[in-house]
Amino acid sequence: MSEERGQDGTRRSGGPRKAQEIFDATLDLLATKGYEGLTIEGVAQRSGVNKTTLYRWWPSKGALLGAALIGTRRLGLEPPDTGSLQGDLEALLRTVVTLLTVPPGSGIAVATLGAVTQSPELAVHVREFFTERLARERPLFDRAVARGELPADTDPMLLVDLLAGAAWLRVVLRQLSVEEDFVSRAVRTVLKGASAGA
Amino acid sequence: MSEERGQDGTRRSGGPRKAQEIFDATLDLLATKGYEGLTIEGVAQRSGVNKTTLYRWWPSKGALLGAALIGTRRLGLEPPDTGSLQGDLEALLRTVVTLLTVPPGSGIAVATLGAVTQSPELAVHVREFFTERLARERPLFDRAVARGELPADTDPMLLVDLLAGAAWLRVVLRQLSVEEDFVSRAVRTVLKGASAGA
Repeated sequence: MSEERGQDGTRRSGGPRKAQEIFDATLDLLATKGYEGLTIEGVAQRSGVNKTTLYRWWPSKGALLGAALIGTRRLGLEPPDTGSLQGDLEALLRTVVTLLTVPPGSGIAVATLGAVTQSPELAVHVREFFTERLARERPLFDRAVARGELPADTDPMLLVDLLAGAAWLRVVLRQLSVEEDFVSRAVRTVLKGASAGA
Repeated sequence: MSEERGQDGTRRSGGPRKAQEIFDATLDLLATKGYEGLTIEGVAQRSGVNKTTLYRWWPSKGALLGAALIGTRRLGLEPPDTGSLQGDLEALLRTVVTLLTVPPGSGIAVATLGAVTQSPELAVHVREFFTERLARERPLFDRAVARGELPADTDPMLLVDLLAGAAWLRVVLRQLSVEEDFVSRAVRTVLKGASAGA
């Protein structure tokens, strides 16, 4: 991996040895103690990596958490490629629903995304996480346009936000279980709407 | 207003004199101090209503906040009736966007809905708030079905969650400004999809 620095001076890619262990420790602490209880010291203790090493890579816990969200292999966020837009969007939304409902990932995801409203520093890193996610999702929409499934002027962010947002509302704010056919119905509705111009 | 008691023993409607002042004080404290900093004592001080009076009506700050969310006149949550489904949904989504972006309401709404992930007690009351909201929104969909704009088996909750969820994602998680045409594009997409069977 090449190394570069983001606007906040943290390294955007690359990282220390044991990066996955560090990210694991960060996300575990977040899930069990919340954003308030997450500390660089705690991560050092849990991961067995020296505190000064952590500070050398990440100047703050917000920066470390941002890197962990993007860099962890745990959240299973690789975008799908099923061969059809319907299939891709269903897989994408199913991943979001899993992320919000299946422990231990759900504890991490819900606590982190909720804490955004309490911590401007965390908010910056979550924003970066979403920007990175959308960049990874764009090829899915490009392929759909190339297959004639979507109009060329489709706004991927709008479609992703409609679907992922519905999952957030259902799971976190309404605190309802997600019905068996929630994913297929949500995707069908958004897809029919989005493809109407194609 | 008639008076009845909810499952948790709190009065669901009715309320003490100066209810709006109490709700205002509750929401102001929440917006400025967060859920952690919100106390019945603080509300008593700010509203000039005796603490024991508050406790007589609401056994906990979560119950008080739940009542304030549903009972306040400040959040402007009366569902629209514009004569068309497109108009109604645009008005509905515009209200959500305003709620999430225009101070001081936005501070209250974002802090409250985010804190759900940190407080199971608050979560119960927010869930009740959303249930109550949906009950008020249903007539809008009933009218649309009656006008032939939607199939009779339309799921109002899905449509509301797609739209309101997209606003939450855009404003709170992506922290992006909402473009001029966000509301009309989101509604158009969801409406085309939802009405395809009509």
